[in-house]
Amino acid sequence: MKQIITPIGTIHSCFKEKFGIPRQSLLAKHSFATIDFVSPHDRQEAWKGIEEFSHIWIFFLFHQSHQDKNSLSVRPPRLGGEKKLGVFATRSPYRPNQVGQSVVKLESLDIIKGKVQLHLSGHDLLDGTPVLDVKPYIPQYDSIAHASSGWVEKNHFNSLSVSFDPLAIEQLAGKKEFKTLIEEVISLDPRPAQQRKKAEKKEYRMRLDQFDIVWTTNGDQATVQEILNLNG
Amino acid sequence: MKQIITPIGTIHSCFKEKFGIPRQSLLAKHSFATIDFVSPHDRQEAWKGIEEFSHIWIFFLFHQSHQDKNSLSVRPPRLGGEKKLGVFATRSPYRPNQVGQSVVKLESLDIIKGKVQLHLSGHDLLDGTPVLDVKPYIPQYDSIAHASSGWVEKNHFNSLSVSFDPLAIEQLAGKKEFKTLIEEVISLDPRPAQQRKKAEKKEYRMRLDQFDIVWTTNGDQATVQEILNLNG
Repeated sequence: MKQIITPIGTIHSCFKEKFGIPRQSLLAKHSFATIDFVSPHDRQEAWKGIEEFSHIWIFFLFHQSHQDKNSLSVRPPRLGGEKKLGVFATRSPYRPNQVGQSVVKLESLDIIKGKVQLHLSGHDLLDGTPVLDVKPYIPQYDSIAHASSGWVEKNHFNSLSVSFDPLAIEQLAGKKEFKTLIEEVISLDPRPAQQRKKAEKKEYRMRLDQFDIVWTTNGDQATVQEILNLNG
Repeated sequence: MKQIITPIGTIHSCFKEKFGIPRQSLLAKHSFATIDFVSPHDRQEAWKGIEEFSHIWIFFLFHQSHQDKNSLSVRPPRLGGEKKLGVFATRSPYRPNQVGQSVVKLESLDIIKGKVQLHLSGHDLLDGTPVLDVKPYIPQYDSIAHASSGWVEKNHFNSLSVSFDPLAIEQLAGKKEFKTLIEEVISLDPRPAQQRKKAEKKEYRMRLDQFDIVWTTNGDQATVQEILNLNG
């Protein structure tokens, strides 16, 4: 029994490329995104009641994770990229049906020219992601604090401590929230596992919203050097 | 961008019909199910590490919820079937892409003739449900105890108090766990909203595993009368 899935909407996200996206949702509270819906799912009646929820589940397609979707094993970044686990014991984006699920904060529902638009924060969704469904997060059922989480529990990511060069501080004047987002994203250490291990000095460039962020690492220290406005 | 989804497995569930299925997972702890997977997803390497998790997410298709899938509004049973809400503000099984998600307890992983089989409890899945994906439940990310849940929080289901007639007790001798399952399922009051409101005396028949359960209601009291073994 095959089934054809038709997206109901599209994510417009501050994350324009895969590099830099937090590895789970709610880690970068200042991340922002909007969802536009295709008709008839953009009609207000389809959303009546949603604003009573602080958090929602977004179901989506990992639309840029084609290459490895038939692999049965993955190497989680959390394990340094060395240990292999089964794809179903992880949340790797490389999976048979490419179905993703993220719980995010619902900031607001807007009506733009009669069409519903959702504003989210605390997400981990790539720009252009096709949305399959939206459902309310219900803590009475979804929150299982005592669940045990195996290898995830035992292996933590080290975070980077982030500072800003004077040029970057100047370029970010008046953009306090965006500066916090940069800090959140880099402190989560988005570097590939191999580079994290070597802790080598290196320059990175990361697209966030309409900006390219240039930053360097030295051990566990990251320094934001420059903010390039791609529209300016 | 349409996408073809191919199920990776099938649920074999104690719930053989929609009537009686708990309205969320983890409500009937004694419910049981098995998932068989199609090749190559039945290979052990695809599951390495899963046993470290107590709970897993099952992604599935609501394969018996065709009729209303284009409706933008639903009438949640929790609201007595009277108030209309938007489909995306509910978890109704009648939804555009029919994608369902349940967190369940992972009881064990068995290898039967070299093929992986999962055993679950605390689920809400209909027998024959096509499975799209399985992912670990990670409380660090998925458990948001402080999330607000709007209309769900304010409207509780009354439960039924369940007793067993002597005939039923006799028929359930030696089936302690199954008796508890019957109690759990009926106490959650599976009756349609209209019948719950009238609180009328009525006889119900509900299939669980290989048995038909005959029970009656009188106000908030339910009495299990007879257990019919469909295989015997």
